[in-house]
Amino acid sequence: MSDSDQLREPIAAASPALWAALSPLGRRVAFPPDIPFQAAQARGKRFNGTIGQVTDGGGRPLALAAIEEALALAPEARDRALLYSPVQGIPEVRAAWRRWQRRGLGDDAPASSLPLVTVGLTHGLAVAADLFGGEGKAIAVPAPYWGNYRQTFAARTGARVLPAPAYRDGAYNPQAVCEALAGEPPGEPAVAIVNLPSNPGGYMPTAGERQALCAALLAEAERRPLVVLCDDAYAGLVYEPGVPARSVFWDLAGRHPGLVPVKIDGGTKEFSFFGGRVGFLTFPFAPGSEVAEALESKVKCLVRSVVGSPVATSQMLLLRALEAADVEEQVAAVRRRLERRCRVLTAALAGVDRALLRPLPFNAGCFALVELAPRLDPEAARRHLLAEHDTGLIAIAPSYLRIAFCSVKADDLPALVANLERGVRELAARG
Amino acid sequence: MSDSDQLREPIAAASPALWAALSPLGRRVAFPPDIPFQAAQARGKRFNGTIGQVTDGGGRPLALAAIEEALALAPEARDRALLYSPVQGIPEVRAAWRRWQRRGLGDDAPASSLPLVTVGLTHGLAVAADLFGGEGKAIAVPAPYWGNYRQTFAARTGARVLPAPAYRDGAYNPQAVCEALAGEPPGEPAVAIVNLPSNPGGYMPTAGERQALCAALLAEAERRPLVVLCDDAYAGLVYEPGVPARSVFWDLAGRHPGLVPVKIDGGTKEFSFFGGRVGFLTFPFAPGSEVAEALESKVKCLVRSVVGSPVATSQMLLLRALEAADVEEQVAAVRRRLERRCRVLTAALAGVDRALLRPLPFNAGCFALVELAPRLDPEAARRHLLAEHDTGLIAIAPSYLRIAFCSVKADDLPALVANLERGVRELAARG
Repeated sequence: MSDSDQLREPIAAASPALWAALSPLGRRVAFPPDIPFQAAQARGKRFNGTIGQVTDGGGRPLALAAIEEALALAPEARDRALLYSPVQGIPEVRAAWRRWQRRGLGDDAPASSLPLVTVGLTHGLAVAADLFGGEGKAIAVPAPYWGNYRQTFAARTGARVLPAPAYRDGAYNPQAVCEALAGEPPGEPAVAIVNLPSNPGGYMPTAGERQALCAALLAEAERRPLVVLCDDAYAGLVYEPGVPARSVFWDLAGRHPGLVPVKIDGGTKEFSFFGGRVGFLTFPFAPGSEVAEALESKVKCLVRSVVGSPVATSQMLLLRALEAADVEEQVAAVRRRLERRCRVLTAALAGVDRALLRPLPFNAGCFALVELAPRLDPEAARRHLLAEHDTGLIAIAPSYLRIAFCSVKADDLPALVANLERGVRELAARG
Repeated sequence: MSDSDQLREPIAAASPALWAALSPLGRRVAFPPDIPFQAAQARGKRFNGTIGQVTDGGGRPLALAAIEEALALAPEARDRALLYSPVQGIPEVRAAWRRWQRRGLGDDAPASSLPLVTVGLTHGLAVAADLFGGEGKAIAVPAPYWGNYRQTFAARTGARVLPAPAYRDGAYNPQAVCEALAGEPPGEPAVAIVNLPSNPGGYMPTAGERQALCAALLAEAERRPLVVLCDDAYAGLVYEPGVPARSVFWDLAGRHPGLVPVKIDGGTKEFSFFGGRVGFLTFPFAPGSEVAEALESKVKCLVRSVVGSPVATSQMLLLRALEAADVEEQVAAVRRRLERRCRVLTAALAGVDRALLRPLPFNAGCFALVELAPRLDPEAARRHLLAEHDTGLIAIAPSYLRIAFCSVKADDLPALVANLERGVRELAARG
């Protein structure tokens, strides 16, 4: 029996839907009994000649002074930052991130695994694409969506991205994913991406919309095995009072045997650590359970074959933040600055000429989306704003411009909106 | 015409063999005119609302104090360590690494591109596997080889790994790659991995063996388009006087139209920065040439779709080392420590009972390989050494144990070898 065959039983027993939804690659991978496996067994031996990293022979790195001196960490933490991370991530980081994910959830929160560390959030998506994508697999995505989904799922694995309108009559559409899947044969496994707060939308659903979204997803799971990838890149960045900030993952885990939510999050936005590339992949199963262990073996194989191991340096820096006594306040301070920008931008956009552009609702994350009037090309608008108004925005086909208020001063936002409106007016006048 | 069609002409014009050797995925990828593309165009604009990273609105990060304080870098370098890296890598890091790669080569050195930054060396191999692997593609690898090649090339892309003996009668075999390819139909493109200094062998060929290796590869390029992936993980770590230390890449670049060497290296071993995950991928074409730009577009698409962007934090730390006035001396100091261990291990192994185990030649890198006597199982030997002799080594089928002298004190190596010999003797006595 091969290693991967051994993983079938624990997965299929715990969740037949999950086994059904695995791609051919996802089914066949298993962490091989290779160097990291053998090295893990040799840990603590008097003579350990297993691992190909340069140490003093007592487990400490022989680092270059130029690199070591730039890390103001306690000696032991610094050593760990310079040596290889375990393929699944540094244990303390995984445990601390799990506590962070589950803070405030209460004792009856659903099960969740120890998060597996990835190289930033995108890598978590790429691992999920390997596990659940594959030739012809249906991936439902509310549109407009982050363009990289297309590369990660379709270009690389051959999956079919099915877009469906995230907005209807200018309001959030909780049925989008299920509308996208309506044409798929019943019984056929599918993947749905739920990215809330959203990119490019900057939207987090109200309590009522969230309920409608979850009901639609649970109904879809009656029709087919459904993996819901919760892309929680913008977790916590919710600015509207009364709108629930928690991940939709917690509303879906353990709710239906046909629905498997997977949580993909990271330090990138939530801890404002963009350059560090620390992401996490979490399954809705208890730590140490057979199914969690089997999935961990598969993810480790995929991580090892693409990046070797995740970034130890960034993990130790993130751990320092997670262990700070005032971590919640440090994170909240960044959120408050974004909240102010969100308010200022909302006010500035309130006055724009609706015949030219219409702001879509936004209350969260890093972005706002404006829809241009029919016949106006967003790419032409983007170039015109760059060339004539010293203003850079992102064009999203067929009719949107995205404003990243996360990287603009609050005081600059009114002028940015004025430039936007002026530029679009000029474009409209041209014909 | 799609973006990827536009890349065909510059590649095929500069190197028909390279175009012929690209996988279906490698042919179709191109960096999309997506967010990073649009953000790059907006750089320097008065209002820049393109990019989804949290800044103060003036380009500086809003980092958490806990993370920022742990980086003892000058303020500007620290800011760059905390924000996104460009997908291709930080320009100063790429330029500095290229100077490092080419130091001491002289004015007539072959062309080489600006290195593209990857997440450690393994990720460089994975990008190359995406570009040149694919269903059924022949990948020739001298055996025994690093097991992860199998995951990266075969499990992920469907390529066929063709092993051939790296040693013959206890000596290095420069013909291994060509022997592995002997059964492939002429004209059919193939990939060869040249990993020197080698893992698990710890061997760097003598000048004569290097000449034979290059002659064999050039002859193979007469028969088929041949991509030679130079896995230079252990670059510079050569301990035997008179053995050339430079990468085989420099002996192959520009030598034959049918042979395309690709250099894959990184800061991991060479700069003893294991936890940082900074690797590089370099093509044998001049910076700014049309073919180099076209390949850069393809690599950027593959990097973006899997990890978003490479690690800025580690790049800035590596840059600090590359810019140190005494960088050569800092790197040489680590090499000298490994050189001493290599000498001590050679001496210790000289006395072992050849009826039990035979050391293969080693003079470089991090490892030594011993071949067990026929009928002795290396996995059984590994477990016995773990259980009874407090000694961890790596078992490699069918008959080898690998000793990582890079992570053992020189003074411990004689005792490790004594344990090894005793353990193997006990195993042999059991029958």
